[in-house]
Amino acid sequence: MELIFLGTGAGAPSRRRNVTAIALRLTRDDSTVWLFDCGEATQHRMFDAPFGPNRVDRVFITHLHGDHIFGLPGLLSTRSFPENVGPLRLYGPPGIRAFVRATLDGSQTHLSYEIQFHEWTSPEPAPVREGLYTVRAALLDHAIPSYGYRVEEAPFPGRLHADRLRAEGLQPSPLWSQLKAGEDVTLPDGRRLRAADFVDPAEPGRVIAILGDTRPCKAAVELARGADCLVHEATFLDRHAHLASAFFHSTARQAAEIAREAEAKCLILTHVSARYERAEEDEILAEARAVFPNTLLAHDGMVYEIARRKRDV
Amino acid sequence: MELIFLGTGAGAPSRRRNVTAIALRLTRDDSTVWLFDCGEATQHRMFDAPFGPNRVDRVFITHLHGDHIFGLPGLLSTRSFPENVGPLRLYGPPGIRAFVRATLDGSQTHLSYEIQFHEWTSPEPAPVREGLYTVRAALLDHAIPSYGYRVEEAPFPGRLHADRLRAEGLQPSPLWSQLKAGEDVTLPDGRRLRAADFVDPAEPGRVIAILGDTRPCKAAVELARGADCLVHEATFLDRHAHLASAFFHSTARQAAEIAREAEAKCLILTHVSARYERAEEDEILAEARAVFPNTLLAHDGMVYEIARRKRDV
Ligand SMILES: [Zn+2]
Ligand SMILES: [Zn+2]
Repeated sequence: MELIFLGTGAGAPSRRRNVTAIALRLTRDDSTVWLFDCGEATQHRMFDAPFGPNRVDRVFITHLHGDHIFGLPGLLSTRSFPENVGPLRLYGPPGIRAFVRATLDGSQTHLSYEIQFHEWTSPEPAPVREGLYTVRAALLDHAIPSYGYRVEEAPFPGRLHADRLRAEGLQPSPLWSQLKAGEDVTLPDGRRLRAADFVDPAEPGRVIAILGDTRPCKAAVELARGADCLVHEATFLDRHAHLASAFFHSTARQAAEIAREAEAKCLILTHVSARYERAEEDEILAEARAVFPNTLLAHDGMVYEIARRKRDV
Repeated sequence: MELIFLGTGAGAPSRRRNVTAIALRLTRDDSTVWLFDCGEATQHRMFDAPFGPNRVDRVFITHLHGDHIFGLPGLLSTRSFPENVGPLRLYGPPGIRAFVRATLDGSQTHLSYEIQFHEWTSPEPAPVREGLYTVRAALLDHAIPSYGYRVEEAPFPGRLHADRLRAEGLQPSPLWSQLKAGEDVTLPDGRRLRAADFVDPAEPGRVIAILGDTRPCKAAVELARGADCLVHEATFLDRHAHLASAFFHSTARQAAEIAREAEAKCLILTHVSARYERAEEDEILAEARAVFPNTLLAHDGMVYEIARRKRDV
């Protein structure tokens, strides 16, 4: 499971940072990629990624500002070129469907696949299941409706100890699957087998929180609660906190405070204002680390692997 | 006066060729740039150009296919960042206004400047004057309405021979301007001065034709008539002429035939299909040159200077 930061800038693209897009590669099932936001030229950034637009089958839009969606029409069009590409599910705030339809219809683009739109209609929509993952969305605090996402991986079932079962005189049978699924079973001869004696505890799945543009808010903390990785905007330095507040953004320090309060394991800062020179970007990182040491500053092309959790034995 | 090819590909961007955009830099008045089409990531291509989006004050869209317009919303937004940027005039087929409005309104983008939309409502609209230039548009032959553009520069007035005027005993006066403007004048003493005796003939202005996607057609020839430079699509090789016809495009040879028939001085091929490898691109050029020797094949970043014409003395 890895995050690929395709664009880490804010507002307008710069030579160093393109506008926002983050890919989540689900390595359990390598064939699909999820995309969080899609600023202009996101498809171009995929030239250097190990996947192209046709591998993206879920798109999660945080909010409708141009630096997060202007790459969608092009990516959706290019995704149409290969044959037999499957449907694409697109989650986002109300208005995302109209935006996509207006751009595709306006350009008379006819896609070879179906887009299934899911617009969030409440501040805290019911979680959606996507294969082995549960995705929660929640409304943040931005100038326009902006959502954060929390992706929860299903637990990995614990290892079945076949040797112990064989020692009990049992050959492979559907009974083994029951034990592996955590169910205790009773044998025909009346013996009772406890799953816990034959199967290791399940390994908890990983949790990733990717938030849209926001001021510090309670929903951000809830989405990030205990996450293995929190991706949070850090548009401004602390000395520009007044701008962050006025434009409904966060400073690096504020992002770190969210990570600390949520007890996240790692914080990745992104969505950095183009006003900052490289030296000031070091300050961004330093300000956050003073509050939350395990912080990284994303850069375009950065790949971050989210390691599997150790079994909680 | 120079053309900067920002994107020279067709359909979808590739590593080598971005989707279509051509900038025309008017060196008589260096402060402004005209843009012909605006595929996705056109603003990114300007990182390496001697101008940014804020220098563009006229945009001419040939047609509404995505590879020609998906970069507009981002470019228009970024253009809004500097203070005091002037209005932008946007020419294009019907629907361009709705596309721009839908994308800007949908993303709640508020521009700091005005966009003046001019949609072509007839196949051969009346020419428009833009400062020292006359722009003619004409409908071509594509799957959707696609226009070609012909930019005609005003003639350069001929040089005034001050020495000859002084030899006649004349000091600088408004009379000199009259002569320079080509008017014969009569002096108070009754002497008649013929402008042609004191002023060189005017130097004809340059003519550039930039066409949208099209099959070969009469309008293309008319727009390109005697042009110093014709920019024509060459989506396909001759062996794919059936595809060119089916998809309302041209082959390199067909583009060259248009240039020959129009007696253009130079042909620049662009909008090359991503299906072709570099070696095949040499074929594209060869096929065109067999018909029209003075042909170039555009590449991303190519700059082409259109030299002033020699005086027709
Ligand atoms: Zn943003
Ligand atoms: Zn095209």
